[in-house]
Amino acid sequence: MRQEVDGMKSVHEGVLTLHKPHPLLSGQRGNIDEMESKLTTEPAVSKCEVIQVAIVCAGHNSSRSMVTLIKSMLFYRKNPLHLHLITDAKAHLILSTLFDTWSIPQMEVSFYLADNVVPEVSWIPNKHYSGVYGLLKLTLPKALPSSLRKVIVLDTDVTFATDIAQLWALFQNMKSDQALGLVENQSDWYLGKLWKNHRPWPALGRGYNTGVILMDLSKLRGMNWPHLWRMIAERDLQTMLSTSLADQDIFNAVIQQNPRILHEIPCHWNVQLSDNTRSESCYTEVADLKVIHWNSPKKLRVKNKHAEFFRNLHLTFLEYDGNLLRRELFGCSNYSNSKQQSSYINHEQINEDDVCYEFRCVKYIKYRTHLFYLDYDYEQDTTDGSSEWDVTLVAQLSMDRLQMIESLAKHWEGPISLALYMSDTEAQQFLSFVISCETLANRKNIGYHVVYKEGSLYPINFLRNVALGQVTTPYVFLLDIDFLPMLGLYPYLKRVMSNLHMSEGNKALVIPAFESLRYRLNYPKTKADLLKMLDVGDLFTFRYHVWPKGHAASDYPKWRSATTPYKVNWEQDFEPYVVVRRDVPEFDLRFAGFGWNKVSHTMELEAQNYQFIVLPNAFVVHMPHAPSLDIAKYRANPLYKRCLDTLKSEFMNDLSIKYGKTFPNVIN
Amino acid sequence: MRQEVDGMKSVHEGVLTLHKPHPLLSGQRGNIDEMESKLTTEPAVSKCEVIQVAIVCAGHNSSRSMVTLIKSMLFYRKNPLHLHLITDAKAHLILSTLFDTWSIPQMEVSFYLADNVVPEVSWIPNKHYSGVYGLLKLTLPKALPSSLRKVIVLDTDVTFATDIAQLWALFQNMKSDQALGLVENQSDWYLGKLWKNHRPWPALGRGYNTGVILMDLSKLRGMNWPHLWRMIAERDLQTMLSTSLADQDIFNAVIQQNPRILHEIPCHWNVQLSDNTRSESCYTEVADLKVIHWNSPKKLRVKNKHAEFFRNLHLTFLEYDGNLLRRELFGCSNYSNSKQQSSYINHEQINEDDVCYEFRCVKYIKYRTHLFYLDYDYEQDTTDGSSEWDVTLVAQLSMDRLQMIESLAKHWEGPISLALYMSDTEAQQFLSFVISCETLANRKNIGYHVVYKEGSLYPINFLRNVALGQVTTPYVFLLDIDFLPMLGLYPYLKRVMSNLHMSEGNKALVIPAFESLRYRLNYPKTKADLLKMLDVGDLFTFRYHVWPKGHAASDYPKWRSATTPYKVNWEQDFEPYVVVRRDVPEFDLRFAGFGWNKVSHTMELEAQNYQFIVLPNAFVVHMPHAPSLDIAKYRANPLYKRCLDTLKSEFMNDLSIKYGKTFPNVIN
Repeated sequence: MRQEVDGMKSVHEGVLTLHKPHPLLSGQRGNIDEMESKLTTEPAVSKCEVIQVAIVCAGHNSSRSMVTLIKSMLFYRKNPLHLHLITDAKAHLILSTLFDTWSIPQMEVSFYLADNVVPEVSWIPNKHYSGVYGLLKLTLPKALPSSLRKVIVLDTDVTFATDIAQLWALFQNMKSDQALGLVENQSDWYLGKLWKNHRPWPALGRGYNTGVILMDLSKLRGMNWPHLWRMIAERDLQTMLSTSLADQDIFNAVIQQNPRILHEIPCHWNVQLSDNTRSESCYTEVADLKVIHWNSPKKLRVKNKHAEFFRNLHLTFLEYDGNLLRRELFGCSNYSNSKQQSSYINHEQINEDDVCYEFRCVKYIKYRTHLFYLDYDYEQDTTDGSSEWDVTLVAQLSMDRLQMIESLAKHWEGPISLALYMSDTEAQQFLSFVISCETLANRKNIGYHVVYKEGSLYPINFLRNVALGQVTTPYVFLLDIDFLPMLGLYPYLKRVMSNLHMSEGNKALVIPAFESLRYRLNYPKTKADLLKMLDVGDLFTFRYHVWPKGHAASDYPKWRSATTPYKVNWEQDFEPYVVVRRDVPEFDLRFAGFGWNKVSHTMELEAQNYQFIVLPNAFVVHMPHAPSLDIAKYRANPLYKRCLDTLKSEFMNDLSIKYGKTFPNVIN
Repeated sequence: MRQEVDGMKSVHEGVLTLHKPHPLLSGQRGNIDEMESKLTTEPAVSKCEVIQVAIVCAGHNSSRSMVTLIKSMLFYRKNPLHLHLITDAKAHLILSTLFDTWSIPQMEVSFYLADNVVPEVSWIPNKHYSGVYGLLKLTLPKALPSSLRKVIVLDTDVTFATDIAQLWALFQNMKSDQALGLVENQSDWYLGKLWKNHRPWPALGRGYNTGVILMDLSKLRGMNWPHLWRMIAERDLQTMLSTSLADQDIFNAVIQQNPRILHEIPCHWNVQLSDNTRSESCYTEVADLKVIHWNSPKKLRVKNKHAEFFRNLHLTFLEYDGNLLRRELFGCSNYSNSKQQSSYINHEQINEDDVCYEFRCVKYIKYRTHLFYLDYDYEQDTTDGSSEWDVTLVAQLSMDRLQMIESLAKHWEGPISLALYMSDTEAQQFLSFVISCETLANRKNIGYHVVYKEGSLYPINFLRNVALGQVTTPYVFLLDIDFLPMLGLYPYLKRVMSNLHMSEGNKALVIPAFESLRYRLNYPKTKADLLKMLDVGDLFTFRYHVWPKGHAASDYPKWRSATTPYKVNWEQDFEPYVVVRRDVPEFDLRFAGFGWNKVSHTMELEAQNYQFIVLPNAFVVHMPHAPSLDIAKYRANPLYKRCLDTLKSEFMNDLSIKYGKTFPNVIN
């Protein structure tokens, strides 16, 4: 053992300053190997060093999938991050809104529109499901700013199980020529032996997987990367006809020709859960898992010995409350300014001692918002000229009204824009509800916009504005989710609007509202049906028993016999359901929870001199439901009414100033 | 630089086998210091070594708090765990059920009843809110098995932010005499300078915090620990009169006398968020945080510069789906047998190809169950003899019926046993709902039993059995949550039961059921009221329009004029709400979701020759609600009816065999 101690001593006198034989160093072999391997694979990253990450993301589904990746990354990260997102227009809208409203401290996000670089790869014949976007990783050295020297490139279907800094640190192990850090493919499929007639592109062995890439942009630029890959791709395409794995085929062909640019990274940085994977050999313990790659078309349903473990990890982040990731890296507070750090709620204007503090805050909360959570594809029919009068139904809801969407969709075949107030977990339940619902699964003209829960008040007007903001038709029908429009309302509206010269002046078409107190309602098929049901007490005018003022101005007696549209005057507390131009004023954000959220809006229409025109052959019926927990909660809160009155006064005051009109004081 | 290379060489020839100068070792100073500090503070734990953890836990609230601690521990752990729980009878029932149904692989749980060791500390005058249980940590060397040599002792109000193995490894740093590893207190409060007349117990400096203890049981036993602490406590109590910090005062007094037994561990292993804490000096980066200790009475509402960060971490685990922690440590599979590993669902009996596979599975799922989620304290009134006839209302629900609990509590002043089917996040919402609801916050005779969601079917009969299983009164009233009992039903039942000789033979008292189709109902105050409302169509007999068979056997026409209880015969499809003895047969688990869940139970009562006796002056009324998402989902599923029919046949068959009776075939 003498020799060992000598060894220790020399180290002591040399660079290391171990003041005593360390238990690990004087311990048994196993530990030393362990330490050595730790030193080899885990070089350090400087404190607060910014980690650069690039992701190509196109369309609604990839955007959703990317969010889970980002959550897993944020959960474990301890460094500032800079995301570089190469997106199509859809993903750009979704993700820029999401990250703006998410307001994560110490995370910067830059967007690069895919359209700018697509021409560089669109000539490549490609059979992969990711289409042309799958190829965009090839263009990164050119697409990303020249000041950016290295970047981790990720597919949207990977999940982190550890701190990304450990991966970033591996750049330090890359030798001078090594420009691409990659993990080997883990399935024999890539050897071309599993399928008959499957001939993979040229590669070293199984080839390398491009789901996780350490990309040294400077080195690639230095070797004229765009020219390099293009030459090799053109040559190989002569025999291969098309790529089947998008960018991955081409990366591998380049590496086969230039093995020196490859730096192989340990396989647990890209544990591939494809079919026939040999990934098991790559981890023996949970601690070994770093990045999991769901690269099977079966995704979460893939069969794997440890699938349950992997699924649990994935579900963890899928359902994780993203708001909790707004936590600040307080060790690196210099990186971002203090404004950004907590900008998701900016309520400096409010006095914390104000008794209505909670109610006043709502207006300033930046609710994390995921627009177009599901596929959306609506093209207005321009052939018959009716698109000029096209109208989108706008509403908002939370989980307890989910089942209403299906009935609504059956009663309204036109486009719908819905804002949904949900938790991350509920968003998943919502997703499977829509997918498993035949009526909804095939409807692509419903825009679902998820607003994540925050605080205790239901931000009804924020939700309405979100749904309103995503409408593309010239007109909107502003409804509430617990109403069902009469069958045929959509085509009726389009017809009637063309006759009413809706485009001239400010007009609001009023759709009279009724209610049923009975749970099993035979929905009236016609106005005649409805009048009969009114007469026998099966239906009532809306809120007849408790709040007749809200709709009295619609003049129900006149409506009974009306056959042509008629004008009515605005009255105090009027809150009709209306069809208006899309550029209608937004709803006032100070009204959240219950009370005055629509009344204030109608008042602003009046201030803008809207004409209220009641439609004689249109109606909506309120479907009964048990009172929601929220209503009950706030009815019981004595502060609520008091604060609502204050907010009303302030709103009226603001309105007077804005429009130079005075409204009667309606506080009662 | 020559010397460095020499140094490296000697190492090479010695124990280390670095085959080339390592980038880290040949790099700059900073890295080496970092490496050294890593080696010093993080000795390794052997792969699959079992980590031993002891926690003292008493009462409902501590049990809830402990679950969050366990979740954080499980999330990061990579080693098998053995929990040693010292509990009172309440916590024992709650936690043994919880861990049994949680079925976490590679985690063993042992229970030690506090009653056995309480006498050893109950003589100590103690002002701490944790009462005598706070002192039990002193008894651990004696209470835990002598084969257990070391253990990490934790308070229930700590949260892990890293792998507990790192803490376990610190045992290796403890020198020969050191028996207690502790972190220093982080508030000057302990110096006795913050409050006037506050004189802390004797301690070294601020003293040490016992929220996290590395306890070397062998060494403590070797120094006759029970004698040691008792002597010092007795002496100091002569001047201090009582302990204000429970065990902590005594541990500190012992340490002050015997500093050699103390091993100080780095402060980030017990970051104390008490008021006036100086814990900030103990971490500069997120990476430094290891264990967070919510040791302020304000708990999550404590004011702290980084409180938001700490709260987010805590909320993460509070709301984390505990089912996801059932993931196996596949690197250590030898530790537990394969049976245990996935025993939360044991469906080996079921053929995976069976079309009714999903429906059949329900019966075998071990739903994670947290009994008595909230304070419960019900003592039967034994003074007037009515306790002999005491009856508990039994029901089950999910979140969408939460608001029913309040009305129910107003209509039924007796004990209630509720099973709630929820996610972990929903359980938190439920908790704040009850706390903020005046009616419920003060009711201690409602047992809330949380059954965590799993799979897609609502396990209605499992829930009923859970609620039924926790009843302590001799009788139960089996109801559904969407019914409101008439006011005064509880005392009426107790009166009537004594006259009916309920204790003799098998009797089921039938409470006739009615329904309202209107959602604004003036609840009938008396039977006369109810009859009037029936006559004008404001009320109907239950399911009159869609399923009259369910209650027809109650003989409503007879009930109208009945003034005394009358017997009725069982009929096919009868599913009345009944009062029965607590030892009634359980509900059959194969019926989940909707259909036959009560019918099957009534049929078994008939098989056991129960007499059905209708009460003339009792009724319940069904409160209307929108159809739940689940009903809609299963009505739309064609497999559902088919599988239900299969299950019915099998149930009838089983029943015939069990009771030797034949029932008419009712499959239609």
